[in-house]
Amino acid sequence: MKRRTGSAERIRRVELVVVGTEMLALGARDTNSDFLKPDLLELGYEPGLISIVPDEQERIVEVVRAALRRASLVVVGGGLGPTGDDRTRQALARVFGAGLRRDPRAWERVARWYRARGRFPGSGARLQALVPIGAESLDNPIGSASGIWWARGDRRVVALPGVPSELKAMWKEAVRPRLEAGGGSVPVASFSLGGLPEADVDARLAELYRRPDVEMTILAKTEHIEVHLRGKRASPAARRAVDRAAALVRRRLGRRIFAEGERTLEQAIGERLRERGETLAVAESCTGGLVGARITTVPGSSDYFVGGVTAYSNAVKRKVLGVPETILRRQGAVSAPCARALANEVCRRLGSDWGLSVTGVAGPGGGAPGKPVGTVFIGLARRGRRVSARALRLVGDRDSVRRRAAAAALLWLHRALGAGPGARRRK
Amino acid sequence: MKRRTGSAERIRRVELVVVGTEMLALGARDTNSDFLKPDLLELGYEPGLISIVPDEQERIVEVVRAALRRASLVVVGGGLGPTGDDRTRQALARVFGAGLRRDPRAWERVARWYRARGRFPGSGARLQALVPIGAESLDNPIGSASGIWWARGDRRVVALPGVPSELKAMWKEAVRPRLEAGGGSVPVASFSLGGLPEADVDARLAELYRRPDVEMTILAKTEHIEVHLRGKRASPAARRAVDRAAALVRRRLGRRIFAEGERTLEQAIGERLRERGETLAVAESCTGGLVGARITTVPGSSDYFVGGVTAYSNAVKRKVLGVPETILRRQGAVSAPCARALANEVCRRLGSDWGLSVTGVAGPGGGAPGKPVGTVFIGLARRGRRVSARALRLVGDRDSVRRRAAAAALLWLHRALGAGPGARRRK
Repeated sequence: MKRRTGSAERIRRVELVVVGTEMLALGARDTNSDFLKPDLLELGYEPGLISIVPDEQERIVEVVRAALRRASLVVVGGGLGPTGDDRTRQALARVFGAGLRRDPRAWERVARWYRARGRFPGSGARLQALVPIGAESLDNPIGSASGIWWARGDRRVVALPGVPSELKAMWKEAVRPRLEAGGGSVPVASFSLGGLPEADVDARLAELYRRPDVEMTILAKTEHIEVHLRGKRASPAARRAVDRAAALVRRRLGRRIFAEGERTLEQAIGERLRERGETLAVAESCTGGLVGARITTVPGSSDYFVGGVTAYSNAVKRKVLGVPETILRRQGAVSAPCARALANEVCRRLGSDWGLSVTGVAGPGGGAPGKPVGTVFIGLARRGRRVSARALRLVGDRDSVRRRAAAAALLWLHRALGAGPGARRRK
Repeated sequence: MKRRTGSAERIRRVELVVVGTEMLALGARDTNSDFLKPDLLELGYEPGLISIVPDEQERIVEVVRAALRRASLVVVGGGLGPTGDDRTRQALARVFGAGLRRDPRAWERVARWYRARGRFPGSGARLQALVPIGAESLDNPIGSASGIWWARGDRRVVALPGVPSELKAMWKEAVRPRLEAGGGSVPVASFSLGGLPEADVDARLAELYRRPDVEMTILAKTEHIEVHLRGKRASPAARRAVDRAAALVRRRLGRRIFAEGERTLEQAIGERLRERGETLAVAESCTGGLVGARITTVPGSSDYFVGGVTAYSNAVKRKVLGVPETILRRQGAVSAPCARALANEVCRRLGSDWGLSVTGVAGPGGGAPGKPVGTVFIGLARRGRRVSARALRLVGDRDSVRRRAAAAALLWLHRALGAGPGARRRK
């Protein structure tokens, strides 16, 4: 559908230009795009291309020019620093067909920044206060390099420093508000779920592919599956269409959904434990600490997570958690009885309400007949009540098996914790 | 230096074109480039641009055409699958100004692949055996989609499926050997180190920036620093220049270097423990299991890692590890005496030769006067010998503080384990 319906409702294209030789010739990764993408989508900009370019003026000019022909917004990250390597200011001046000027306010701020650190604001400092004539300077609340904002007709170019914390702060304070003023946001909804193969999720939601106003994407991650819905314009009708589609997703996937929006599984678990006033302990073998590490990514998790035991060797399983010698000898450490004993004992000995355990063969070695690599048992105990175990057969390399085992254990715990106020909200 | 010195010695440009709307409109990340970059550098190809493009034929054509004007090799990943979304075959045929043909050998393989899975090889299967006229088909040893190899004069275009395991397998089996046949590799050397600020590393190695035959890059990661050296051509003289520069790096940074090449810190620790025939246990508080999770990423780590206790709550510190109540009350859980007690007790109770501990304030909450967010104590015990603790002040958000605390503990352990045969090699 090519019909234009006014600039506030139309989906606009954005291109990202990431500047930095270290992301091409070395192992450095572009993480700024990951931060910018969801925000841009919410603002109604669809990323049409991401280009990672070296610190070469010629290349930056060429790529920004091509981007500006196709997209209404071009976001450039990096190349604004104080050294000779930093070419973005000069490159943008060439793209805009303008010279560079020293911005008095930016200069004052940069000079102050240097002096506050006992350093003389020399040529590197002066460089960071330059903006192309006809463009605005953007303040940097954290570092020294100032940014650039340029607008002509319906085209916008923004340049921000590549240091992630500076880019994020400047984006939120200076850029996002300007873009918001220029048009409404496209409605979105997203869901995270586990325990169903991707093909089943696809089949259950197939009819959403045919809805004219909603775009659906199903994304299989290592640990879980995500369903993303997105309206095709920024209007109340599009909002209603996305809401209807979201209702269908909830009906079809029900309790498989562990979170909506940006929430993680460990956040959802934390909220449920906090609501119930209960605590958790974990006993890990093949995951080596991953489950605890995930739980404790959440600030304040000490309110409900008491700790865990990583019982990597059988001696520790026996000595620290009291797993009976007979289980280890007869059924082995990778078995349902062992998973139950680990969950039960960690719960009892660490004094928590819930005990969660993982034991398995992550590979590449350690497989045995009947227990190939990927065989994992997870156990769940509720103090003074029941304890149970489940067998999993996971695929992938060592890293994937470990991450999937940790995710499966957390998913099980989340379902056992039941629907809380957070879940009822999405009735 | 623009002088050309013959195609075998000249550094050639490569551009990567990553195809997939999910990497633009959704949270998916391009991991294939991370795999390809080091291999390409080693083969003497310098990545000049990475473009992430949507599944749109027009855009793929435009980007590959521009890449082919600048680079001698273009690697396209993605868009070769069985669905209507997969546009790379058609796009490349347009770039080459050719039609598409069905490759008989590829068709036979794809049809066999479908039948082996009990599926009829229909239109999707037929699509995956198409190659542009004048190009070769590349076998896929894992999945169904065949790849594409095209050569004209000194220009090469390779297209591989976007599924990482398929791309990797086809790259190693079919593409790399062809590229190797076309020219020698550029000499490289790399080092990982910790315990020095980036600016100090930079100052110690500054003279290497001025060497004409070697390119140096210093990369500050969250957990450690990397130094990369790279010859400017594929010749014995360049190899010697890189070796001389590497010798200087070893002299200037000495024991700060924990690994050379691709080795990780946890691998280096594992090798040293194995050589010494000793074992390790960990006691973690603020890192919640991260140290154990890192140690156990190494296959076979059960040979030297017995396990750990994540003592997140004070009750667990007391009950499971016997940290004296007086320490917790007077000095607090975040203190040198507590770090020492944790390291000592985990070593004793789990029966290991070494005990390593971490306790701190990861934030954002939990800071106190004298113990702000980022205050971390690490402890190290050797059974029956001494136990000591160190104080750290780490910067960053919760995730960075946790990762840096785990890295600092592992670095300390690595240095305590001393120089082994692996380290003597780099005398």
